[in-house]
Amino acid sequence: MTTHPPAYSHLLAELRRLDRLSSSLGILFWDEQTNMPPKSAQLRGEQTAALSELVHRESTRPEIGELLAKLKEADLDEDAAAVVREARKAYNRATCLPGEYVARAAAARSAGFHAWVEARKDNDFAQFAPHLEAQIDLAREGAHYQGATDVYDHLIDSFDPGMTSAIIDPLFAELEEGIRPILGTILGSERGVDPSLFKGFPEDKQEVFLREVVTAFGFDFGRGRIDRAIHPFCGGHPEDTRMTTRYDSDNPLDSITSAMHETGHALYEQGLNREFAGTALGSSVGMAVHESQSRLWENQVGRSRAFWRHWEPRYRELFPEQLAPLSSADLHLAINRVAITPIRVDADEVTYNLHILLRYQMERDLFSGKLTVKDVPAAWNARSAEILRFTPQTDREGCLQDVHWSEGLFGYFPSYTLGNLLAAQLWYRLQEDLPDVEAQIGRAEFTPLLEWLRNHVHSLGRRYYTQTFAQKVTGSPLTPQPLLRYLRERYLPLYSN
Amino acid sequence: MTTHPPAYSHLLAELRRLDRLSSSLGILFWDEQTNMPPKSAQLRGEQTAALSELVHRESTRPEIGELLAKLKEADLDEDAAAVVREARKAYNRATCLPGEYVARAAAARSAGFHAWVEARKDNDFAQFAPHLEAQIDLAREGAHYQGATDVYDHLIDSFDPGMTSAIIDPLFAELEEGIRPILGTILGSERGVDPSLFKGFPEDKQEVFLREVVTAFGFDFGRGRIDRAIHPFCGGHPEDTRMTTRYDSDNPLDSITSAMHETGHALYEQGLNREFAGTALGSSVGMAVHESQSRLWENQVGRSRAFWRHWEPRYRELFPEQLAPLSSADLHLAINRVAITPIRVDADEVTYNLHILLRYQMERDLFSGKLTVKDVPAAWNARSAEILRFTPQTDREGCLQDVHWSEGLFGYFPSYTLGNLLAAQLWYRLQEDLPDVEAQIGRAEFTPLLEWLRNHVHSLGRRYYTQTFAQKVTGSPLTPQPLLRYLRERYLPLYSN
Repeated sequence: MTTHPPAYSHLLAELRRLDRLSSSLGILFWDEQTNMPPKSAQLRGEQTAALSELVHRESTRPEIGELLAKLKEADLDEDAAAVVREARKAYNRATCLPGEYVARAAAARSAGFHAWVEARKDNDFAQFAPHLEAQIDLAREGAHYQGATDVYDHLIDSFDPGMTSAIIDPLFAELEEGIRPILGTILGSERGVDPSLFKGFPEDKQEVFLREVVTAFGFDFGRGRIDRAIHPFCGGHPEDTRMTTRYDSDNPLDSITSAMHETGHALYEQGLNREFAGTALGSSVGMAVHESQSRLWENQVGRSRAFWRHWEPRYRELFPEQLAPLSSADLHLAINRVAITPIRVDADEVTYNLHILLRYQMERDLFSGKLTVKDVPAAWNARSAEILRFTPQTDREGCLQDVHWSEGLFGYFPSYTLGNLLAAQLWYRLQEDLPDVEAQIGRAEFTPLLEWLRNHVHSLGRRYYTQTFAQKVTGSPLTPQPLLRYLRERYLPLYSN
Repeated sequence: MTTHPPAYSHLLAELRRLDRLSSSLGILFWDEQTNMPPKSAQLRGEQTAALSELVHRESTRPEIGELLAKLKEADLDEDAAAVVREARKAYNRATCLPGEYVARAAAARSAGFHAWVEARKDNDFAQFAPHLEAQIDLAREGAHYQGATDVYDHLIDSFDPGMTSAIIDPLFAELEEGIRPILGTILGSERGVDPSLFKGFPEDKQEVFLREVVTAFGFDFGRGRIDRAIHPFCGGHPEDTRMTTRYDSDNPLDSITSAMHETGHALYEQGLNREFAGTALGSSVGMAVHESQSRLWENQVGRSRAFWRHWEPRYRELFPEQLAPLSSADLHLAINRVAITPIRVDADEVTYNLHILLRYQMERDLFSGKLTVKDVPAAWNARSAEILRFTPQTDREGCLQDVHWSEGLFGYFPSYTLGNLLAAQLWYRLQEDLPDVEAQIGRAEFTPLLEWLRNHVHSLGRRYYTQTFAQKVTGSPLTPQPLLRYLRERYLPLYSN
């Protein structure tokens, strides 16, 4: 065991303390979505603002800077060097931002979010436009303070470290080209199931099924919970992982797939090194790898024939009458339904990537200056017609549909598709070690799969950034071919006439 | 409207910020009792420790001291003077404590609590003794920093401002003397109902009943919640009031009375001036007045014939078979059951005060030096025999039963009985303004009662301390005769052979 300089253990103690403070804030956010009484929103806004400001102040304490100044990565072993590298990056980014800017940006995010809610309700982009303008300006201003050379790349990096437009552009182009013929075959097929056949699934029984699946996947309820929220999410700390789901009695498959998705995120969080939470050794790589975990459990596992071989009987046991009109083949088609839908969050795993491509191009052009805010609705609709072959009839089903921009989350969208690429790469890679994984899934034996992910993904923390990570774990940086192969293998047999 | 100096509005902003931070900590405590996964306790301990330390640091910022130095109560109107007085008191008490002491006391409280849990489980006071010793020393040390002249009075004042042993001693003596003959009559009576007749009350139906009662009392679910926890409590912020209850299918009355009790606390919180939360204008007076509110709704209202006149039919509708063997008279006797029980939290409203008297005398003697920690079990048992006429067979049902001392909460116990005194005083006083209150309660009309409490109690905030408050609101400082009158009127007719 390497001996570390005393400054290193002091740094670890500081990082642990910051982790405890920021995860406290995480509990307040979770509570806001799950438990907060309806009229307590203003109080909660003031609570999180006051606490956020304190956490920011604590994370920029000069004492941390002094410790970092004493620690040279070259003198440390690989793990400690990664811890110091990430702590330095976070510290430098945080200290670059004037306190006045942090407070102003927080207030603008809150105002932007509420303006977006209203604008979406009123279906009126013009109401939201000045807030979007303000968010873009704030993002530029923050990137400027932090010494960014390219603003949009800097924003992408904040969600997915090391990622750039130069990496994404060719990946997305190749992916789009590959998806077109697959989608053409599916949409040209006569096969399909009317989703309105799914009706009257009582929520309490949906919850029974869902908890059985989540438990079987390996979620540790000793260190986590699942609750209801309007928007499913996974709030994460390795020692207290809080995921949420929603139930719709006439759309039961949505609740299952979204719970499997959030479980993928949750298993990643619970698989991180608890002892080093808040450091590079106990943090996720970024949103792309996070999304690879949610997608793998939702799609590669949860939409597979193997999975339903075991679970369909149990599902029919819980909903005998509701499922009576549906054959096994119908059920499987419904689970793997593909359709052009206006709304991203309702999209299937084939068209989802086209939704992301659209948003990525919009963001890239907004930050390069090619596109101005007032032209967003027209540009969105034109691009949607081109990429999705669908023209939104309203802003609500077009450029106002996503929350991200209202809160200044630019550069986040690409992670969703990057995560899809990585999920497929991991899926083929892990089958080299686990040739029986489909058979195991068919017996509801998820432990070998989870163990593989623990050893090859979760335990790595943030030692490597996405591209290096993908190279080390799957033998290749991110590439679209495994996802295209997976989509062909999954969907072409289902939708061949 | 008086014009206040600018320092006053700055002080209000500081106090509002501190309120937002400390109530964030309140959400973490609530979550710990209601939602936290079982294995997340260590993380939560570290989160609350880190956040508590920050909140303490923020509440002792020199900027607040500078504002207070500029503000003289004599130059301000009565409301502003009260705000400054209370802010100064809190600031002085907090700044007197060295940071090192605050951290050491927090760690000792946590260690003390866990040692108490273990000692109680093992029924072994010796395990807990060093922790009790440490808590007493810490309480003395803290009182010394804060310049206390009498340590125990100083501790009492921290829960119930202005209260002293010199006030309490004669009140408790007179109360004990008055309770003896009432208790003698009750215990000599042949009337009573076997509590084991209450069996098999499904929890979900108990919850239905309880929510109907809580809603009828006037609890605002728009700004509060009720959840399950092992120990019922009310975590309070006027804008987000979180109370808890518990259900036992074989002890359904406990859940009702304890929910009515917590609702009394919650109505007080929700009735405080929201705009001035965290200041003297929007804070409770102290624990005695808080307890007067919980007791009034639980006892004077919730155990009355009038209350059950309306609610008994609904209760029987929900539990027709369970209640079939019990007459109305049986039900009412069970609700007003009186018995010598070893455990304070299970005690009825007659013997409860004797449990408090015992604890008060123990604390007083521990802090005067008359009693040493090692002699606590023997002294407890001897006093219990004298006051309660009951000798605990084990420490678990004796001196280890309460959590308070393990966390350094000395001086808290007297508030319970002081609250009982005040509840009775308020009860007779409010009937002068609301002569029909019993008839209204009999029709489940609680609005006039709640409005009276809003106007005469809740809206006063902490402008006056308990004795002045009691004088202003009821025409007398605290006095035992109204409680004794109430106990005689309630219990003697029930238990006369």
